[in-house]
Amino acid sequence: MSDTRYFALITLIVFTLTLWFLPPPLHFSLNVWHLFTIFIATIIAILFNLIPIITAALIALAVSVLSGVIEPSKAYAGFSESFILLIVAAFLVSHAVHKSGLGKRLSLHIIQKFGHSTLGLGYSVIATDILIAPAFASNTARSGVLYPIVYALAHDCGSRVEDNTHRRVGSYLMMTSMAGLTISSGLWLTAMAVNPIGVGIAAKMGITITFGSWLLYAFLPTLIAFVLIPWMLYKIFPPELKETPEAPQKAAEALKMMGRISRNEWITAGVFISMLTLWVLSGIFPIDKAAVAFGGLGILMITRVFGIEDFKSQGEILSTLIWFAILFALSTQLVEQGFMNAVSEHFTQYLHGLSWVSIYLLLILIYVVIHYLFVSQSAHLLALFGIFLSIGVEAGVPSELMAMMLLFASNFNATITPQGSSCNAIYLSSGYISAREIYIYGGAVTLLAFLIFMIIGTPWILALT
Amino acid sequence: MSDTRYFALITLIVFTLTLWFLPPPLHFSLNVWHLFTIFIATIIAILFNLIPIITAALIALAVSVLSGVIEPSKAYAGFSESFILLIVAAFLVSHAVHKSGLGKRLSLHIIQKFGHSTLGLGYSVIATDILIAPAFASNTARSGVLYPIVYALAHDCGSRVEDNTHRRVGSYLMMTSMAGLTISSGLWLTAMAVNPIGVGIAAKMGITITFGSWLLYAFLPTLIAFVLIPWMLYKIFPPELKETPEAPQKAAEALKMMGRISRNEWITAGVFISMLTLWVLSGIFPIDKAAVAFGGLGILMITRVFGIEDFKSQGEILSTLIWFAILFALSTQLVEQGFMNAVSEHFTQYLHGLSWVSIYLLLILIYVVIHYLFVSQSAHLLALFGIFLSIGVEAGVPSELMAMMLLFASNFNATITPQGSSCNAIYLSSGYISAREIYIYGGAVTLLAFLIFMIIGTPWILALT
Repeated sequence: MSDTRYFALITLIVFTLTLWFLPPPLHFSLNVWHLFTIFIATIIAILFNLIPIITAALIALAVSVLSGVIEPSKAYAGFSESFILLIVAAFLVSHAVHKSGLGKRLSLHIIQKFGHSTLGLGYSVIATDILIAPAFASNTARSGVLYPIVYALAHDCGSRVEDNTHRRVGSYLMMTSMAGLTISSGLWLTAMAVNPIGVGIAAKMGITITFGSWLLYAFLPTLIAFVLIPWMLYKIFPPELKETPEAPQKAAEALKMMGRISRNEWITAGVFISMLTLWVLSGIFPIDKAAVAFGGLGILMITRVFGIEDFKSQGEILSTLIWFAILFALSTQLVEQGFMNAVSEHFTQYLHGLSWVSIYLLLILIYVVIHYLFVSQSAHLLALFGIFLSIGVEAGVPSELMAMMLLFASNFNATITPQGSSCNAIYLSSGYISAREIYIYGGAVTLLAFLIFMIIGTPWILALT
Repeated sequence: MSDTRYFALITLIVFTLTLWFLPPPLHFSLNVWHLFTIFIATIIAILFNLIPIITAALIALAVSVLSGVIEPSKAYAGFSESFILLIVAAFLVSHAVHKSGLGKRLSLHIIQKFGHSTLGLGYSVIATDILIAPAFASNTARSGVLYPIVYALAHDCGSRVEDNTHRRVGSYLMMTSMAGLTISSGLWLTAMAVNPIGVGIAAKMGITITFGSWLLYAFLPTLIAFVLIPWMLYKIFPPELKETPEAPQKAAEALKMMGRISRNEWITAGVFISMLTLWVLSGIFPIDKAAVAFGGLGILMITRVFGIEDFKSQGEILSTLIWFAILFALSTQLVEQGFMNAVSEHFTQYLHGLSWVSIYLLLILIYVVIHYLFVSQSAHLLALFGIFLSIGVEAGVPSELMAMMLLFASNFNATITPQGSSCNAIYLSSGYISAREIYIYGGAVTLLAFLIFMIIGTPWILALT
């Protein structure tokens, strides 16, 4: 450990202890204040890259359980969340997609068509995402579909984590696809699990949003975000390999080399398409998405496409499961113990006497920034969407504008932290991008989307209502 | 897949479908009958080695959730069980014990003293277990202490999974240590989490068992089991390497070669001893054992004894977490939905008119055999101990004998299946033994213990009361 990092860690420990022993503000109970102290110290440790995210999460768990701040059963509750287990199962299935050669074949087809440049690949990945999104009520499931393809694209462009060539193409594509999920999820009412929940909450307050009106409101800002975000990442987080004029030709040759679809590819394709179908149907019928993925994995294992020996090398996703489940539980406890409500109510006190435009701006800004404290998008929307919407509407913000912008923000704030969305976890597990890079470049994506939606989206929605 | 295995799998599927569509016996609801069908098919598939335990569990989960037999939240509940997560954390810590060289050092000391023969090593492992057991209220935690030492012993005797030399010494030692945990847990009232719970249930029925009386009742049969079990395994599951007269000398030389204790060994030893202390104290204070292990892992990671790159190769324990959590949830649901009660009540109908000796024999036999349907020892005791005790006492079996023998059986039935105890999971994850071997040789251990406790334990307890 370098001296600077050592010093920074000591500073963080002193800061944390100080916070811990300060009298709690805003009439917080001692317990909730300690919980917040642990959580904020964890976030800072990850943000400044002092310790890896898994280490930070393990220590946060031990401190919060052993100090009695959280009961063990609540601290471990995240481990049995279906949507978190879905990440694990989808990641394991993605290994079979890779191993069977199916991922390679799909990616070669994409390179053959769009592989002239890395930027072109970036756009084609998001375009695919946007096209399949309306049928996917879960962006986590969608990330499970896109991830193996992006992984294969990176591999087939000669960009691997093992030999330290991840920055050639892979890191850029992973970050772009992760950012793309926030774009595709915001475009369609049915592209993200919490969108309809938000619409339901809005409906109770007399605000009607339909599939069509959502699409209309979202269309223009999403289109601009679709154009600008891959381009911005290309500038600030550039791939080492940019122009690849010979790639499509090479891909065509490689496809010829691969020959006919093998037994394992057929099985994987069958499982993958069945999973995809069931995930799409899970929007209509009560089908548990994680059970679908576990079942798919079971079939891949019984047919030996995915062997028991393949499990051995999949420890990365165990690490993801552990840190994500722990951070999710901490954040959920912050909500359950009333912390989030108290903070947002406190901030909105300062809104009195301001114009509705300022209030609107501030509310959306706070709503986005407070996502630093949330793990997963659902937890955030469920905790704060209703409160923010009613404060905005009472203060005179046009109700449809307020509702839509909060819903958009619930989607585009997802890449602000590694734990901001369960989708991020699967990309982070790849090793192509680091937690710190998500804080920086994911944060930049969120900022750009915030500006696009506020500056272009706001007048666009107002003009339509 | 061989033709026989293929045929066996088809037979199992046909059998399962037949069972599924049969009218449920014993007034079972359709739901509980389907759950039992899924569970029994899973157990058979594992028992006959048709598919690996993880594959069987994944398919069982998918079928039971997608068919609506179990709600998703209940199917995933096992993943957040503290005692299951304890296995995961303890396994990860054991990797640090191995990697740091501490495991090697401890094992060399043991070989130096007891390493003349593999049988001697087997006895010394169990003796260590028995000596530390009264201070460990959790046999799962104790397996986390013993496992890295047994692992190191195997390694230092040149017996590894990677190069297929696991049967030389390792497989025997793993199986023996796993069997040893059932012996040590039955000797002391405080050596196993459910022992005091059972004593508490017995106390409500007017049966007083103290730390001392337990030890006295347990002493003779445990001593005989301690002598016979490692010897029997030595005969039926023999190590390839038996006599190693030169091993102590070699170990002494290797210890010299290792030199002074390294930084990483010191840190690991500190963490290991702290964990051990907190685990011992968790019998008195409300300390969550899994949080202790996760915290220990966090410290090992922050000091870089256990690196993030070490996680990558730890996928085996992810597989263990998944299958154990799934099977635990299925078994728990069988209890919650009343299946276990109905079955045991049904069987005890046939007891009317029999002598108390026959009833006693039958009850203990059923109690042991029914462990095939239970995942973890706690679930079993909590579900059936009270019922079996009251049936036995009402039928005239001496109450202390009935209580003690059921408590002993709760411990010695643990190795009857791979999922019979959370301790087994950690040994199985090592790769040194297979699920099928636990069914066979763990089953043999259970049978031998059953005979020892019934034939010698019964008159011994009667003589003392």
